[in-house]
This record gives sequence, C-alpha cells and structure tokens, in this order.
Amino acid sequence: MVGVMTLSIDAKFDSGNIEVLDASSPSKVRLAIRPDVGDEHYQWFHFRVGGGKGTALRLVITNAKGASYEGGWPDYRACASYDREHWFRVPTSYEEGELVIAHTPEHDFVWYAYFAPYSHERHQALIGRMQSRPGVHAESLGQTLDGHSLDLLTVGQGETPVWIIARQHPGESMAEWLVEGMLERLLDPDDALARTLLAQLRFHVVPNMNPDGAVRGHLRTNAAGANLNREWESPSMERSPEVFLTRARMDRTGLRFCLDVHGDEALPYNFIAGSDGVADLHEEVLRLRDVYCAALERSCPDFQNEHGYPRSAKGKANLTMATNQLAERFQALSMTLEMPFKDNARAPRLDVGWSPGRCKCLGHAQLDALAAVAARL
Amino acid sequence: MVGVMTLSIDAKFDSGNIEVLDASSPSKVRLAIRPDVGDEHYQWFHFRVGGGKGTALRLVITNAKGASYEGGWPDYRACASYDREHWFRVPTSYEEGELVIAHTPEHDFVWYAYFAPYSHERHQALIGRMQSRPGVHAESLGQTLDGHSLDLLTVGQGETPVWIIARQHPGESMAEWLVEGMLERLLDPDDALARTLLAQLRFHVVPNMNPDGAVRGHLRTNAAGANLNREWESPSMERSPEVFLTRARMDRTGLRFCLDVHGDEALPYNFIAGSDGVADLHEEVLRLRDVYCAALERSCPDFQNEHGYPRSAKGKANLTMATNQLAERFQALSMTLEMPFKDNARAPRLDVGWSPGRCKCLGHAQLDALAAVAARL
Amino acid sequence: MVGVMTLSIDAKFDSGNIEVLDASSPSKVRLAIRPDVGDEHYQWFHFRVGGGKGTALRLVITNAKGASYEGGWPDYRACASYDREHWFRVPTSYEEGELVIAHTPEHDFVWYAYFAPYSHERHQALIGRMQSRPGVHAESLGQTLDGHSLDLLTVGQGETPVWIIARQHPGESMAEWLVEGMLERLLDPDDALARTLLAQLRFHVVPNMNPDGAVRGHLRTNAAGANLNREWESPSMERSPEVFLTRARMDRTGLRFCLDVHGDEALPYNFIAGSDGVADLHEEVLRLRDVYCAALERSCPDFQNEHGYPRSAKGKANLTMATNQLAERFQALSMTLEMPFKDNARAPRLDVGWSPGRCKCLGHAQLDALAAVAARL
Amino acid sequence: MVGVMTLSIDAKFDSGNIEVLDASSPSKVRLAIRPDVGDEHYQWFHFRVGGGKGTALRLVITNAKGASYEGGWPDYRACASYDREHWFRVPTSYEEGELVIAHTPEHDFVWYAYFAPYSHERHQALIGRMQSRPGVHAESLGQTLDGHSLDLLTVGQGETPVWIIARQHPGESMAEWLVEGMLERLLDPDDALARTLLAQLRFHVVPNMNPDGAVRGHLRTNAAGANLNREWESPSMERSPEVFLTRARMDRTGLRFCLDVHGDEALPYNFIAGSDGVADLHEEVLRLRDVYCAALERSCPDFQNEHGYPRSAKGKANLTMATNQLAERFQALSMTLEMPFKDNARAPRLDVGWSPGRCKCLGHAQLDALAAVAARL
Repeated sequence: MVGVMTLSIDAKFDSGNIEVLDASSPSKVRLAIRPDVGDEHYQWFHFRVGGGKGTALRLVITNAKGASYEGGWPDYRACASYDREHWFRVPTSYEEGELVIAHTPEHDFVWYAYFAPYSHERHQALIGRMQSRPGVHAESLGQTLDGHSLDLLTVGQGETPVWIIARQHPGESMAEWLVEGMLERLLDPDDALARTLLAQLRFHVVPNMNPDGAVRGHLRTNAAGANLNREWESPSMERSPEVFLTRARMDRTGLRFCLDVHGDEALPYNFIAGSDGVADLHEEVLRLRDVYCAALERSCPDFQNEHGYPRSAKGKANLTMATNQLAERFQALSMTLEMPFKDNARAPRLDVGWSPGRCKCLGHAQLDALAAVAARL
Repeated sequence: MVGVMTLSIDAKFDSGNIEVLDASSPSKVRLAIRPDVGDEHYQWFHFRVGGGKGTALRLVITNAKGASYEGGWPDYRACASYDREHWFRVPTSYEEGELVIAHTPEHDFVWYAYFAPYSHERHQALIGRMQSRPGVHAESLGQTLDGHSLDLLTVGQGETPVWIIARQHPGESMAEWLVEGMLERLLDPDDALARTLLAQLRFHVVPNMNPDGAVRGHLRTNAAGANLNREWESPSMERSPEVFLTRARMDRTGLRFCLDVHGDEALPYNFIAGSDGVADLHEEVLRLRDVYCAALERSCPDFQNEHGYPRSAKGKANLTMATNQLAERFQALSMTLEMPFKDNARAPRLDVGWSPGRCKCLGHAQLDALAAVAARL
Repeated sequence: MVGVMTLSIDAKFDSGNIEVLDASSPSKVRLAIRPDVGDEHYQWFHFRVGGGKGTALRLVITNAKGASYEGGWPDYRACASYDREHWFRVPTSYEEGELVIAHTPEHDFVWYAYFAPYSHERHQALIGRMQSRPGVHAESLGQTLDGHSLDLLTVGQGETPVWIIARQHPGESMAEWLVEGMLERLLDPDDALARTLLAQLRFHVVPNMNPDGAVRGHLRTNAAGANLNREWESPSMERSPEVFLTRARMDRTGLRFCLDVHGDEALPYNFIAGSDGVADLHEEVLRLRDVYCAALERSCPDFQNEHGYPRSAKGKANLTMATNQLAERFQALSMTLEMPFKDNARAPRLDVGWSPGRCKCLGHAQLDALAAVAARL
Repeated sequence: MVGVMTLSIDAKFDSGNIEVLDASSPSKVRLAIRPDVGDEHYQWFHFRVGGGKGTALRLVITNAKGASYEGGWPDYRACASYDREHWFRVPTSYEEGELVIAHTPEHDFVWYAYFAPYSHERHQALIGRMQSRPGVHAESLGQTLDGHSLDLLTVGQGETPVWIIARQHPGESMAEWLVEGMLERLLDPDDALARTLLAQLRFHVVPNMNPDGAVRGHLRTNAAGANLNREWESPSMERSPEVFLTRARMDRTGLRFCLDVHGDEALPYNFIAGSDGVADLHEEVLRLRDVYCAALERSCPDFQNEHGYPRSAKGKANLTMATNQLAERFQALSMTLEMPFKDNARAPRLDVGWSPGRCKCLGHAQLDALAAVAARL
C-alpha cells in the first residue's frame, strides 16, 4: 500500500465543535466552526486530529472572519493537548480572514480547542468532590431546556449573601476553571483567610450557568439560542430557565455581592467590568468596587485595572445584563470578571498562554479581594 | 415555607438513562428505564438524585420486569457514588416485577447506575494517556453513526496479531474497566511479563466498540438499534460500521487470538464462553483455550471455569457473533470473557460487589493467561 | 500465656527523643525528655509507642517542669500520627510538673511528637524537588560539626537580596514546614505574584539552619550545644559553623530583607518580632516592617499583630541574635517570625491545632507581604 | 573572583557512606568506601555531590578492589538521582582496581548510591501505611543494638504460618523494595489472589531485619559487626538480637514457608537459592521449591531458574544461614531470593537497570508463586 497519509478529525464529544470541509491534505486542512443554535454566534472550536504525528499540519478555519469577534483572532494562539490534562499553545495566525493553526504533533492524536475545555464530566466531579466537604450544600436549581441540572453549591456560616456565577457564555470555559480554583481554596481548612470568609459570608456558587451551551460546543448561547447575559431583566422558563431560576433564588437569598465570571475574546488582559451605568447606584458600592479591584491586583498581578471596557455613562446601564441588573436590583456590589482567551499581555507565557492553572490562581485571589470588602458588603 | 422535601432527578449526562414518572414522595419514587433505540432492549440505568441527604429513599424502577434480562434483577444490588470516583453497592430488591433501591444518602447528590460508568471523557483520557507511552500507536478506525471515533491502540514488536475488543454491548461498562487495567499493566515498563508479551505479540485493542450506545445510555445496541454482536457475519457501514471497520482491519492484520470482553446480567461469575460450536475448529485451539482458562483462574481466583454458558454443539455456532466468526474466519483462539453485573458469588464483597478495581485486576491477569499460550498462537 | 500487655517504645529515628523510665503499665508510662548536648535545654520529644491499640494510654513526661519553657505546657496538646503523614492533637494536660498525654490509639503504632516532625529525608527531598525547577540554584554552604550539609537555595532574576532562614532552633520544625509552603508557591509558574517577586528579588533560602540539632532531636542547640541565635555577633567554625557560613555568604550577597523563622513554646499566636532595639535603624525600615506585618495579617488571618514579645528599647538590641545583627549590619528589614507549638488562639482547630498545612499557608502569605514591601527594600 | 569550581560531597544522612580523599578536581575526585563495623566488609556507597552541574565528573572509588565482592564491579553501573524519587544508572567502569563513575549532572545536586536506597523514614512510612489496612497487626519484636525497633507485620486469617524476611544484609536495599511491592499487592482488596492467600495463610513479614546496618550505611553487618545470615544456629541478644528475636517468634508461630530476600553483588540475575544441603529434608519440600520457582518464572520473567549458586551437597548445608536453619528446624519450604545490584542480564534496561519498580513487580509475583504451593505447605 502506498503511504497516503489520512487524517481523522472528530468532534463528537463534550463541547466538540468543528466541521471538516476537506482533510485530504495535511498541509491544507479546511475546517469551519459550526454556529450556535440561532446562527448568530460562533468562535468556540474543539476537535481532535488523528494521524498527524510528525507531520507539519496546517489547519485552516475558513470561516474565522465571520466569527462573533473577529478581533479575537489577531495574536491568538490555539490551545492543544495530547492527554487532555496539559494544554499548551501552538503557532497560530490570522491571515486574510482565516485562522491558521500550524503544528507538527508529537503524538498520534491531538486535541485542539479555543481554550482548555471544562467538560460536564469534570463539572459533575467538581460538584461531587465539593459536596462532601463539611458545611457544603449542593442542590439543583432546576433543569435547563436540554435537561441538564443547574447546580448550586452553598457554603458559609455568615449572613451576608455572596453570589458567584460563571459561564453564562458557555465557550468561556476559563470561567469554570476559575471557580474550581476559588472553591478549592475556600474549602481548604488550612487556609485562614478562607475560614474567615466562611464565618462572615454565605457563598452561593453556580459553577456553570449554561451547561446546555457548554456541552453543545456553543460560544455564547443556550439551547434556545438565547444569550443568557441579555436575559436578566425578563428571564423566562421557556427561553432562559438558567437565568430565571438563578434570579428567583437570588431574590430569596438576597445578594450583597455578585461576581459574574467571563472570558473576553479580544482583550489580552484580566479586568473587571462594573456597573457604572446603573442610575442610582450608591457611591459606597463604587468605592467598594475600587477596593476590590485594588486588592485583586495586589494579590494576583495577572489582574490589572488599566485596560478594560469603556465605562457606561450613568443611567445608561443595560439592565438585561446580570451585573447591571443585580447591582440595581439589590443595590449591591456586582461585577463582571473578564479573562482573556489570548494571554495576559502584561505577563505572557509562551508555553501555555492564559491557562487553567492561572485561572485557578486568579480564583484563589478572589478570596483576598473579597476579604478586603467583606465587612462592608 | 413549609418543609416539603423535593427531590431532583437528572440523567442528562454521559450514559444517563432514566425517566421520572413520579418523584413527589421520597419513599416512593417511580422511575422507568428508557429503552435502547429500537425498543427491544433496556436494563442500563444511570441517574443522579439530589435533595435526599439523610432521607430514606425508595427508588422504584417500575418497568424492571420487561427488561432484557429479568434474571439480572434477583440478588442484584445497585451501584451508587457520591463523588463518581468511588462506587459502592446499596440495598436493592426485586419485588413483583419492580426493582427497588432503598438508600439513605449521606450527601446531597447521589449518582446511581447499573454498573460503575465509564464515560467517553474517561475513554478519551485513556487514549490520550496511553498514546504517549513508547511504542504505542493510536488511531481512529473510522466513525460511528453518531460521529464518534472508533479508537484503536496498537502496541508490540511481535508478529503474532492479538486482538482485544470490549463493550460491543455498551451497557457492559465493566468491559472497558478491564481493558484499562490490562493496558496499564501492558505498558508498565517495570513489568517483566508485559515486556515479554510486547516482544512476542502485536496487540490491537479497541477499548470501546460501541461509543454511540455507551454515550446514549443503551444496554445492548448502537445508534441504529443494532446488537453489534450479531453483526459479524455481514456487517455494513449503514447498520454496524463499528463491526465493519474492525473486521476489515482484522482481515488486514490477521488474528491469532481474540478476547471479546462482556458483562452478563444474570450469572454471578466471571467466565469464558468459547467457540465450541464452530464446525471445524482445530483441536489445538480448544486445548489452548483450556490452557488460557486454567492460567486465568490461577492468576485471578475471581475468575472460574465451573459456571458459565452451556456449550454449543459442534457445527451449531452462531457465526454472527464475534467470537465464533473470528474463530472460524482465522482458525484462531477466540473467546468471550463475561463479568457479572452482580458480584462474584465465589468471593463476594458486600461493600462494592463486582467493581472497577476488580475488573482492572482481572485485566492484569489476562496477561498472565496470554503468556501461557503466547508461544503457541 | 496470660495477657500481659506490653508496650514498645522507641525513638531511634530522625529527631527521636525520649527516655523510657517505666513502661510496665500502660496507664502510667513514665518518660523523660533527653536534654540537648550541654544539658541546658530540652522540650522537644518524638517517639513511637507500639502495642497500645484500644488501650487508654497515659504517657507521663516526668521532667516537664524542668524543660526550657515551662510556660509551653499549659494548654498544650501533643501531636500524634498513625502514618506520619497526618498529624492530629491528643488530650494532654500539665499536672504538678508533669506532662500527661492521655490517648487511646486506634492502631498498633502511634508516633507522638512535640510538633509534626520535618525529617532530614524530607529536607533532602525538598532540595531535590526544588533544584529541578527552572532558575533554581542549589548548593552547600559547607558542613556542620556532625557533617551535615548546610543547604542553600537561590532563585530570582532581581537584584535585591532577600534571605529566608529557618530552624536555627531545631525543635521548631514548623519553621521548615513554612519554608516548604513558601517555596512551593514561589516556584509555581501559574502564580503571578510569585513570578513578579522572582523578577524583582533574589531569594536566598536556608530551609534548615541546624540540621545537626534537628536529626539529634534537640530543642535549641547544635552539636556543640550552641544556641545558634546567640552566635550572630561572633560566629566561629568551631562552635557555630552554621551561622559563620551563612553570615559570610550574606556579606557577599548583601541583604535587604531577612525573615528568620521560629516557633514559640508558650504564646498561642503567630507574630513578628522585630529589631526595635537596634540603635540607629532607619525609620523607613520600621515603617516597612509595619507594612509587611499589616499585609501578612490581611493575607493570612492566622497571623496577627496584637500579641507578641515586648519590644526592646532603642539601643538595647541583643546583637548576638540574627534579626538584630542583620538589621544593624545591613540597615535592612530583618524580622523574626514566630509560630506556636500550641495553636493559634484566635482561630483554634481542635483536630490538628497549629499544623503543617497551616504553616504552609502562612508560608504562601509571606509572598503577599513581601510584595507589599518589595519595591522599597 | 576566578571561577574555581568546587564540589561539595556529603554522606551524612540515612545509609550515607563515603570518604572524600580529594575533591579538588572534578575530573579526578578520589573517594573511598568506609568499611562496616569490624572492617571486614564494604561495598555499599551512598553520597551526594553538589556543584557539578554541567561538569564532566569523574568519581573514583579508590578502594574498590578490596571490597567484599570484587566480582560485583565489572559490568556494574552506579545508581544516581536528582530528586531521590527516580533513580537511573550512569556510566561506570572498573579499571585497575578502581570504580570510576563518569557523569555530567544536569542539576546542582546528585545523589549516587550502590542501589536505590530504602531509608528508615520510608520504612516507618511503610509500617504506618500498612498498619491501618484491615486485618494487619504491627508490632515491635524488640530492639536492636543501636536501639532501632525490629518491626513485624502480621496479616491473614489462615493457619499456615508464612514468613518473609528481608535485608539481613543491610546494603541489599532491593530486598525492602520487593517487600513493599509484595505488601501492596497483598493488601489490595481488589486483588483476588491476595484475598485467597490471606484466607489460607498467616503472613509474618519483617521488612528490614537489619535497621542498624541500614542506617549506618553498612553492606553486610549489624552494629556489632555480625553478619546476621551466619547467626541462625546460635543467635544471641548481645551479638545478633535481630536473629534471636525473630527466630524465637518463629518458634512460637511455627513456620511452613520462609522467603529470605537478598541481593547479589556479582550475578546479573534473579534467582532462588534453596536449602539443598539440609540433610534430611523431605523430598516433598524440594518438589514444592521447584513448583514455586517455576510459578515465579512464569509470572515474572525477570526471574529465572538457570543461573544461580551451585547447590550444596546433601548434608553439607551451613546451618548458620537462615534458609538452611529454618528448613531443617521446621522441615519447611525455606528459600533465599537473590536479586542483582547490576541488572537482569536476560532483560536489561539501559535506563534504570535493576530498579525499585522492578523489585516491586517481582514482589507482586511472589504471591503468584505462593499460590502455587499454598495448599501443600
């Protein structure tokens, strides 16, 4: 048999997303990202290539230009793994509307992804592991349209209700990595700061707000094609049960603090986006935000307060977004944390870029920042 | 609010399978197993119950009587886990056609399953981990009807082709646990017997012959409703690509030994089912089978040679089954290994019953048994 | 044979220290701590008891009253372990000059110690593990009187020389646990604060200043009976080579910061003891100390700034002590960190008291505190 | 400062043994092994070299010719480690009576040893870990001359007393690695063969018969200079308490099987040395030995039955040796297992040679061999 090399490409697994247009030539594999339900959004990809060991692969995502954030491609490098434990970055370029991943694999199979995936299996393992720690209560807030459970962890003896929600946009897997890191520290009995916070606060944590989108390999929407972070003003069980159920529980528990964890496709920084535009937000809340942000930068220099989104003008807040809605609804400190898909440009790491391990460290640091404001929430 | 306890039950995850008929009363939760595509088979279940901590749950599988193997229910105890790492058995009874699981959970969430599940995520992790060991080649034989990759691992410097295939029946998850154990030993450089076998033989291993059925939570069939172990005479890409692709590769590599790994719903034993009925099978092959079985029992007393299936009469072999087809096709030693869903009645363990750890040990012992016949294959 | 229970007690191992006066009755085992060379000091004990499973042991340290710090015994609870990995506290009382450990072991052997031991084997493993991290240089500063190597780790691209030394008093094993925690964080590539510090500073770390005393099971002195923390004015190779070699290297590298890590027998708190008494110490140094201490308390509430030693009057500093000598010699921020043998009375933990895990967390927090002063050193 | 490279060499740690004659030139470091107490024996070495990173070291053991087994040096390669977890082999030659280790270290510190050491700390960790497994009894048989405890583990519900003793010759550290492997398998509840053996037999295991010699860095003798394996006819508490105490216990428990685990300096093979010379040993015992040896070779091809010691003539057995004494005393199956310091010449591994991992695998296989004879002991 003549040695015709054939690549196998598959994406039939948790958060898999790719369409193979032409895999006949390893040096010009033509791929396309499948859009989220509703066809409005796409950028998340996750697939496995087999048969390319020692071959200079050139994987071309042909519909990159039309992705949700074209600005996400310049300076972006794709994530790759041979064992799905360790993820590293590979040479990637954005050329004439196409994203080109150029990589010579060292092993037979390589998994490629927009960011290190966080599967529903890992999610369940997280819930399972955390629920057996003393004081932790685990429950389902209800079911999503695809029938996934929307899981909530509650812990802490304090009376001040603190909410952490992550991954409204399911492709932003870094958000759940951060929550994993935060929970690990919070439930470490040797950590004195964590013990102090547990005595002061009552944590409500939703590690994955959008399991449907996550499993489906969506970038931004749920199974109904809804962008959950535009559903906070009028959520419904039909279109956005994830938000409906969470907001209803927040109304019951109250909320003095909320961190909504996200990833940003374009900006190569970790930053906080606040609720500046909320009309009548108390000055004290804005001061607390500054205290939080300063403490976070101090504890984790991977975070910074210089680069970020432009601030909304007073009264111009989009109340369909979680952070704004919750700030107004509860007159509480409510913030969006953004992490990069690219790298932190202030402290880049050529090997892994922004990574699960760094997400987890930034998760640890949220507790330092919370401690700086806890008494005043 | 009055303390009405509500249970949450979900099965929207890898190999999840349950329908909730009525969960209004923890002491009488009525459930049904969803049949495989084709409606012919069902027995596998896998679901999670939330909200039952400290409550005496009584979970009733109402359609147990109509399951594929009613004989599987008497003396069966369901598997449960709080963290999806450690699986233990819980009190279960078969009463008037219903299977009743009676359990008071110690934590908020409990996962219940027919046997400890082996997810597609774990499957991928296995492939990823093994492919980086020296000498291992990993590849995709092709894709299933649902689009999963049919993964093959090849290793060994020898010329004698040896095949291990597992989980044609996807609910028999014990089969992939066994393969994991066997591979771990085979690729342990400190293990002299494994090194010897790698020098003598060429291993071809398909850890999961039926990923579609596995992910879907089927008991016996693939996405087309086909029982793969009745497809070996005339497999087709339309109905049984898993068998078609595997058999085609076997034809290319040759086959001197095949172990097809299964689970049996009713018999509480580990045993080998041979290819007795194959018309003109050489006597030497049958002698080798006896050598293999004796060596296996010697190395792992969880295996035995007393209880098993009745032997087919000479010439009466069902050639649609892998073991018979391959025995005839290659005049080779071809066997089916059966493990229990229940426990090994010879050496029962009240805590875990037949378990992943014991499957893996029995997987290690396959190498001892192979060593006893390797030179004569 | 009549069931006379006999206990076996041994202490012939790393940092072992006990003398058995009478072990004939489990309810009145009479023991004595062997003094350090020079007979001036004793308080450290470490021994193993066999044969007491299920028996109410009463272990009496008869010479407790004469120990170096009688104030160390009230409210102290002894450390115990069945596997030498997990250490827990057991009921202990100080009665009429005797320390009484009352414990009913769950296993055949129990190890008891004044604090969780940190052996020379573990020390070597620490050096071995750390030396292979990128950028770390490991070396021997020279040999002690017993012939142990005095090991130094150096890491960091910065120019500001920072020194961490621990365990001048060998029985204060918590000091090396803290250094282990600090090094683990410092060399974690995912930790942004650590990366920042490595860019700014040059760390010189001596994890164990007194290996001779540590292995011998001493409380305070080296093999010559010298209290190393009284040797910093005039160290000699004959009496205190540990200090001689370290101070000589400090003179070569310079020193802008020094943390000397200790344990305190009596005070149930973590605190800093400064160099107040140093005659002409620059005000800025004292301000930096306050910044450091405030940052440390913020990051790790197991640390506090209320309880501690009385401050020396200006000009009254004992310059034979490391902290004072180095503050004066280098006009640098030089501090002693004290941890309790008992527990942290502000946040006690009945199960483990002050523990290795908590030492390591406090070690992590040293980096937060260092970051608060790094730019001004 | 001119770059004069200076090496630091130390051996002041568990089983350390070296004398530095001249370390002034890295390419000609002159060393000598310190003899055991009594000056009769030496061959074990264990030391650490610092400062040689990237330098072609040439370490010369100048008194190699006079070592106990000159035949141990040809074809021997020294063991080395950077982290004391992973041990590898380095180029070594025996030239004109000197052993020359030629190695260019990749890290600052390297530990070199005759074989991968097994420290008293690890021994205690083994005892601690095993004693908490169900059914295990741990105790001290008494104390050695240096005051170490002679530890015994007992486990099994059977009535047939089986003894495993290891490391009478303390430099033969491979013996304790093998016992660790054997115990790990024996106490694995998933292992059916182990469960069967525990039901049939009563195991008495002394993982280290000679802790004094082990800690001191001896090759063959205890603290009194006694070769314990010449003390079994007339042991005494003054000269050989290790044997005295063990034999006394054997007399109490009875003994139907004994494996005495050793290392051989010269022969590059694993083999059994029996008790052929014992005058009136029952034929059945010799047959059982053959069964055991055959089963062992079958389970672990790193073992073989071709190369070994010449057999003693009937009646010529040296009854001062454990194996012979116990065979005669109890008319039992009593064998010496020898492992190489070099490598197994039948299946050499260039990277690690004969290694801890392979010792542990051979330890697992002892259980297969025991199972082959258990019913007839």
